[in-house]
Amino acid sequence: MTSATILSDLGTEILIPICAVIGILFSLFQWYLVSQVKLVAEKPDADGKNGFTESLIEEEEGVNDHTVVQKCAEIQNAISEGATSFLFTEYQYVGVFMVIFAVLIFVFLGSVEGFSTSSKTCTYDTTKMCKPALMTAVFSTVSFLLGAITSVVSGFLGMKIATYANARTTLEARKGVSKAFIVAFRSGAVMGFLLAANGLLVLYITINLFKIYYGDDWEGLFESITGYGLGGSSMALFGRVGGGIYTKAADVGADLVGKVERNIPEDDPRNPAVIADNVGDNVGDIAGMGSDLFGSYAESSCAALVVASISSFGNTHDFTSMMYPLTVSSVGIIVCLITTLFATDFFEVKTVKQIEPSLKNQLIISTVLMTIGIAIVSWIALPSSFTIFNFGTQKVVKNWQLFLCVCVGLWAGLVIGFVTEYYTSNAYSPVQDVADSCRTGAATNVIFGLALGYKSVIIPIFAIAISIFVSFTFAAMYGVAVAALGMLSTIATGLAIDAYGPISDNAGGIAEMAGMSHRIRERTDALDAAGNTTAAIGKGFAIGSAALVSLALFGAFVSRAEITTVDVLTPKVFIGLLVGAMLPYWFSAMTMKSVGKAALKMVEEVRRQFNTIPGLMEGTAKPDYATCVKISTDASIKEMIPPGALVMLTPLIVGIFFGVETLSGVLAGSLVSGVQIAISASNTGGAWDNAKKYIEAGVSEHAKSLGPKGSDPHKAAVIGDTIGDPLKDTSGPSLNILIKLMAVESLVFAPFFATHGGLLFKLF
Amino acid sequence: MTSATILSDLGTEILIPICAVIGILFSLFQWYLVSQVKLVAEKPDADGKNGFTESLIEEEEGVNDHTVVQKCAEIQNAISEGATSFLFTEYQYVGVFMVIFAVLIFVFLGSVEGFSTSSKTCTYDTTKMCKPALMTAVFSTVSFLLGAITSVVSGFLGMKIATYANARTTLEARKGVSKAFIVAFRSGAVMGFLLAANGLLVLYITINLFKIYYGDDWEGLFESITGYGLGGSSMALFGRVGGGIYTKAADVGADLVGKVERNIPEDDPRNPAVIADNVGDNVGDIAGMGSDLFGSYAESSCAALVVASISSFGNTHDFTSMMYPLTVSSVGIIVCLITTLFATDFFEVKTVKQIEPSLKNQLIISTVLMTIGIAIVSWIALPSSFTIFNFGTQKVVKNWQLFLCVCVGLWAGLVIGFVTEYYTSNAYSPVQDVADSCRTGAATNVIFGLALGYKSVIIPIFAIAISIFVSFTFAAMYGVAVAALGMLSTIATGLAIDAYGPISDNAGGIAEMAGMSHRIRERTDALDAAGNTTAAIGKGFAIGSAALVSLALFGAFVSRAEITTVDVLTPKVFIGLLVGAMLPYWFSAMTMKSVGKAALKMVEEVRRQFNTIPGLMEGTAKPDYATCVKISTDASIKEMIPPGALVMLTPLIVGIFFGVETLSGVLAGSLVSGVQIAISASNTGGAWDNAKKYIEAGVSEHAKSLGPKGSDPHKAAVIGDTIGDPLKDTSGPSLNILIKLMAVESLVFAPFFATHGGLLFKLF
Repeated sequence: MTSATILSDLGTEILIPICAVIGILFSLFQWYLVSQVKLVAEKPDADGKNGFTESLIEEEEGVNDHTVVQKCAEIQNAISEGATSFLFTEYQYVGVFMVIFAVLIFVFLGSVEGFSTSSKTCTYDTTKMCKPALMTAVFSTVSFLLGAITSVVSGFLGMKIATYANARTTLEARKGVSKAFIVAFRSGAVMGFLLAANGLLVLYITINLFKIYYGDDWEGLFESITGYGLGGSSMALFGRVGGGIYTKAADVGADLVGKVERNIPEDDPRNPAVIADNVGDNVGDIAGMGSDLFGSYAESSCAALVVASISSFGNTHDFTSMMYPLTVSSVGIIVCLITTLFATDFFEVKTVKQIEPSLKNQLIISTVLMTIGIAIVSWIALPSSFTIFNFGTQKVVKNWQLFLCVCVGLWAGLVIGFVTEYYTSNAYSPVQDVADSCRTGAATNVIFGLALGYKSVIIPIFAIAISIFVSFTFAAMYGVAVAALGMLSTIATGLAIDAYGPISDNAGGIAEMAGMSHRIRERTDALDAAGNTTAAIGKGFAIGSAALVSLALFGAFVSRAEITTVDVLTPKVFIGLLVGAMLPYWFSAMTMKSVGKAALKMVEEVRRQFNTIPGLMEGTAKPDYATCVKISTDASIKEMIPPGALVMLTPLIVGIFFGVETLSGVLAGSLVSGVQIAISASNTGGAWDNAKKYIEAGVSEHAKSLGPKGSDPHKAAVIGDTIGDPLKDTSGPSLNILIKLMAVESLVFAPFFATHGGLLFKLF
Repeated sequence: MTSATILSDLGTEILIPICAVIGILFSLFQWYLVSQVKLVAEKPDADGKNGFTESLIEEEEGVNDHTVVQKCAEIQNAISEGATSFLFTEYQYVGVFMVIFAVLIFVFLGSVEGFSTSSKTCTYDTTKMCKPALMTAVFSTVSFLLGAITSVVSGFLGMKIATYANARTTLEARKGVSKAFIVAFRSGAVMGFLLAANGLLVLYITINLFKIYYGDDWEGLFESITGYGLGGSSMALFGRVGGGIYTKAADVGADLVGKVERNIPEDDPRNPAVIADNVGDNVGDIAGMGSDLFGSYAESSCAALVVASISSFGNTHDFTSMMYPLTVSSVGIIVCLITTLFATDFFEVKTVKQIEPSLKNQLIISTVLMTIGIAIVSWIALPSSFTIFNFGTQKVVKNWQLFLCVCVGLWAGLVIGFVTEYYTSNAYSPVQDVADSCRTGAATNVIFGLALGYKSVIIPIFAIAISIFVSFTFAAMYGVAVAALGMLSTIATGLAIDAYGPISDNAGGIAEMAGMSHRIRERTDALDAAGNTTAAIGKGFAIGSAALVSLALFGAFVSRAEITTVDVLTPKVFIGLLVGAMLPYWFSAMTMKSVGKAALKMVEEVRRQFNTIPGLMEGTAKPDYATCVKISTDASIKEMIPPGALVMLTPLIVGIFFGVETLSGVLAGSLVSGVQIAISASNTGGAWDNAKKYIEAGVSEHAKSLGPKGSDPHKAAVIGDTIGDPLKDTSGPSLNILIKLMAVESLVFAPFFATHGGLLFKLF
C-alpha cells in the first residue's frame, strides 16, 4: 500500500533540525534587537537597524531624563527578582512531584510484564519481536523527565524575556507608539520562536537517540515518546494553576483596595501589591501560558506519532512519512518567521489604530502561508496512499485527505480566533452591550457578561466539531492529531502576539510606577488594550487546540488500551461520562475559591499597610512590596496542590479501580464539558475587562455617556472586571490542561490499566 | 421465565384509580381547610379543625382590623388577575404551537410506513401482527394533546391554589407563625396531591382507553403513550421559560430601582413593579414548576412503560407487572398522604426554628415510608424473575433487583436534597463564607458564590452516577426508568414543600403591601427563609430526576431507533456529544440575556414612574402596576420563543439531517453537561439569596458584623442576589426541561428518524 515519498529520509533528517535551528537563531536575533534599547542611563541608540533608524513619528518625551531610566531599571529589577524567586520556589515543589511521578511511571509500566527483561511479541504486528515492557518503562520515564524539563525551561525563558523587555517597552514609549510596539512585539517573538523551535528540537533529538536502542521496534519507541507529552503537560498544569492563582490574587487584591477603596490608579507605586501584580503577569500569563502551549504542541506531536507508529508507514519504517507531524511543525517555524517580518519590517505601525489590525493580520498571513506550507509538506513527505490504524481495523488514507485534515485544524483555529475577538474586543456590539448594562449596576453587568460568555461558545464548538468530523472521517484519530498540529503549526506567531499582551501590560505598570507622564501612560494603555484582545485570542487557540489534542490522545489511549468501542449504552462508560463532565466544575470551584481566599489575604495586607505606614497615601513613604509578593507566592504554592492532585490522580484512580471503559467515559465527558466552560470563562472575563476599558477610554459618544472613571457605571464595570480575573486567567485557561493532561496521562499508563486496572469490577 | 404475581390484574385495575382518587379527595379536603380562613371582613373563625382549635401560642395582632382584611383581599385579587391573564396569554401562544406540533407528529409518524392502513409484523416479536404505523401516529398525537392539556391544567390549578392561599397565609400570620405555616403548607399539599393524582389518573385512563383499540399489541400501545410525556414536557418548557423570564424580569427590575436606587423595602407598595413581582412567583415558581415536575413524572412513566412493553411480561401481557411503574406511583400518593399528616396533625410547628426541620422531616419520613411501600409493591406486583430488553439482548432481572433500582433512585433524591440544603441554607458554613466574602465587595461575593455552585455539583453527580450504575447494571434502561420513578414517587410531598416557598414569599409581599406591622412581616420572612431552602431542594430533586428520566428516555429512544451501540469512537457520535454539551450554554445565554433585557425595560418603566408620578415616593399617589405587568408579560411571551425553538427544533434537525447516531450523541452530551450547569446555577442563586437573608436577619455575632441592611457588605450581597435570580429561577430550572424534552421528543420521533433521517450523510 505504501508508496515512496518525494522527500528522502536523509532530507527529513536534515530539514527538521535546520528549521529548528533557524527558529532559534531568529529568536536570538530578535533578542539582540530588543537589547539595543539600553536600560542604563545614556543617550538612546539612534543608529540601530530594523525600524530603529526610521524618522520619529511622534514627539519624543523625556528621552534624556536619566532618573526615569534609573527608576525603570529598578522596577524591572524588582519584578524580575520577584518572578525568578517565585518560579524557583514553584520548581522546588514541582521538582518533588516530578521525581515521585517519574518513579510511579517506572513502577506502573514496568509491572505490566512483571519487570521482565525478555523481549515480547509486538502488539500490532505479532510476527515481530518488540523490546521488553521494562525498557519502555525506563524510556517513558526518561522522556517524561525531558518533557518536564523542556516545559519548565520554556516557561522560565519566557518569563526572563518578558521581564527583560517590559521596561525597554516603557522607555521606547517615550519615542512613540510605533517604537514601543516593535519592542513589545519582538520580545513576544523571541519567546514564540524559542519555544516552538526548542520543543521541536528536543523532541527530534529524543526520537533519534531512543531509536538507537529501539531500532526497528517503532511501537515501543513511540509509546515511550508519549512520556514527553505527559512531562510537558504536567509541568504546564502547575505553571498555569500556580501562576494563575499568583497573578489574580495580587491583581484582585491590588484592585479591591487600590482602585475601589482608596481611589488610586492601577499600578500606582503607593499600592503595596503593585509589584506582586506585575510579577504575576510574568509568571501566570507568560510562564504559565508558555508551558501550556508547549504542552499542547508536545502532546499533539506525541499523539500523532503513537498513532502513526501502528500505521502502514510505521510498519514499513518509512521515516519521512513517520516524521510528517514534525515536518509540518518545522515548516510552521519558517512560515511564522516570514509572518513576523510583516509586522516588524514590511509594514510599520504608525498609529494606535493600526496596532490591533497589525496583530490580526499576523494570524491571517500565517494561516494563508501555512496552508501552502502544509500542501507542500503533504505532497513531498507523504506517500500518495497509506493505511491508518482505526480501533482494530485499518483505514486507507490519501495524502490530499491528510492535507485537508491539517488544514481544517489550521483554519478552525483562525475562526476561533476571530470569534473570540468579536466577543471580547470593545470595537463590536457584544462588549458594548455589556458596558451599556453597567448603567443599571453591577448585577446586570454580570448577567450580561455571563450570557455573552455562554453565547461565545456556539461558533467555536461548531468549528471544532467540523474539524473533528472532517479529520476523524478522513483519517481516524491520526487525522484528529494532525488537525490539532495544524492549529498549533503557527504556534510561534500565536505565542508572539500572546506574549505581547502581558509585556505591554507590564510596560504600562512600569510607566505608572516610574512616574512617567500621562502621555506615555496613554501610549502603553493603547498597546495593552490590543494585548487584551490578543490574549483572549491566544486563549481561544489554546482551548481549541486542547480539545483536538485531547481527543487525539483519547483515541491513542483507546488504541493502546486495546478497546475497540466506547459504548455510551453501558453503565461503566455512562457513569464515566457523567462524572467526567463534572470534573471541570470541581476543578474550577477549587481554583476560583483559591483566588478568592488568596485575594482576601492580600486585601487585608494592603489595607494594613495603608492604615499603619504613615505617609504611604501621600507618597512620602514606600510600601512593603515584599510581604505582598510573599503572600501571593505562599498562597499559590499551597493552593495549586489540591487542583493539581485532582487532575493527576483522577486517571490513576479511575483506571486502577474502575478500568479502561470508565476511564474512556471520564475522558470524553471532561473533554466535551471542559471545553465549553473554558471558552465561556475566558471570553466572559475578557469581555468584562474590555467593557471597563471601553468606558475608561471614552472614545465614542456612547462610551462617554457611561464614563468617566469613577462614575457609577464605571464602578459596576470594575466589579465585573474583578470577577472576570480568576475566570479568564486562572480557571478558564487551566481547564485546557485538565482535559489534555488527563488524556495524556491515561495514554502513558494505558498498558498498566489494561493489564491491572478495574480492580473494583474484578472484585465484585 | 415469567411467573405469576401475587396481585391479580383485577386488583391492579382497582388499586391504581383508587389511590389516585384518594389523592384527589385528600387534596380537596386540604383546600377546604385552607378556605376556612375567611378573606371577607368578619371575626376570624375560631372553632375550625385540624390545628385551628389549638390555643394560640403567639400574640394575636390586628385580627379585628377589617381594613387590613379588605386590603389583603384587594391585593390578592390583583395578583390572581395578573397571573390568570398572563397564563391565558401564554396558553394562546403555546396552543398554536401545540396544534402545529400535533400535526407534525401525525405527519412524521404517519409517513414512516407511507400512511399505510394495513397491519405490519411487530418489531420485537416478528411472529405477531401489530397495528399499522398510521394508527400509532393518530394515538401518539392524541396522547400528546392529552399530556399537554394535563400539564397546562396542572400548572393553572397550582397557580389558582397559590393565589388563593397567599393572602390567607398573611392573615393567619397575625395569629402567629404556627397558623401561617399550616395554611401555607396545606396549600402546597393541595397542589402536590392534585398534580400527582391527576397525572396518574389521566395516564391510567388513557392506557385503558387506548387498549380497547390496541388489544394485544402492547408495542404499539405504549409507543403511542410516549406522546403523553412529550405533551407534558413541551408545555412545561414554555411554562418554565416564560414564567421564569416573567418572574425574574419583574423581580430584578423591582429590586434594582426599589432596593438599590430608592432604598425602599422589598415588596413596598410604592414600587410599581411589586404586583408583577408577586404575579411572577405564581406563574414561574408555581405554575412553571408544577408543569415541570408533572412532565418529569409523565416522562419517567412513559419511559418505563415503553421499555417494559418489550420485556417478557410485555410479551406475555402480564398486566400487573406491566403496570408496576403506575403502582409504585399509586403507593407513593398514600405514603405522601401519611407523611403530610406528620407536619399538619401529628406534630405542631410552634417556633420559627421548627419550620425548617419540620419540612426536612417530610423528606426523611416520606423516603423511609416509601422504601417499605416499594418493597411491598415489588413483592406483590412483580414476578420473582423476568427478562428485560437490553439493546438487542434480553437480560434476566429478579424482583428484588428491581426493588433496589427504585430505592437507589429514591434515596439518591434524599441525598441530593440534603446536599442542596447544605449548600444553600444559611445555617451552614458554605453560605456563611459567601456572606463573609461580601466584606470585600460584590466581586468577591460573586467569585465565592460561583465557586460554591461549582462545588455543590460534586456529591449530587456521584449520587446520580451511583443510581445509574446500580439500576443500569441490574435492569438496563428499565432500571434507570424506575429509579427515576423512585425519585419522583414522593412527588406529592416534594411539590407540597416546594410550593410552600412561593406561597410564603407572596404572603410576605401582601403583608408589606397591606401595610401590616413589622412583627407580621418578620413572621412571613421566617416562613419565606425556610421556603428558599426548600425551593432549592425542590430544584435539586427536579434536576436529579430529570437526569435519570432523560437517560431512561434516551435508552428508550435508542431501543426504538434500533441502535445497539452508541460508540464515542465514531465521528458521528462524537460531534453529537460535543455539540450536545454546548446546547445548555446556548440555551442559558438566551434565557439570561432575555431576563437581562426585560429587566432593563422594567427598570426604565419603574424609574419613569418614580420620576413622573408626583407623590409616589411619599405614598400619597398610587403607582401604575398594570404597565409593569404588561412589560413582564410581553417580554416573557416574546423571549420564550427562541429558547423554546432551540430545544424543540434541535432533535428534529439533527434527526432528519444527521441521523440517529448523531442524535444519540447530542442527547448524551446535553444530558451530562446540562445537569451540571443546572445544579450549579440553582445552588449559586440559592446561596446568594440566603447569604443576603443571613446578613439581613443578623441572628449571629458574625452576621451582625456584616449588617445591618444598607451596609456595604449588605449592598454587595444584594448584587449577588440579583445576579442569582435568573440563574436559579430561569436558566437553571429550564435546563431540566431541555435535557428531558429533547430526549422524549427523540423517542416519539424515533421511528421517523430511523426510516427517513440522516439525509446529509445519505447525500454525501
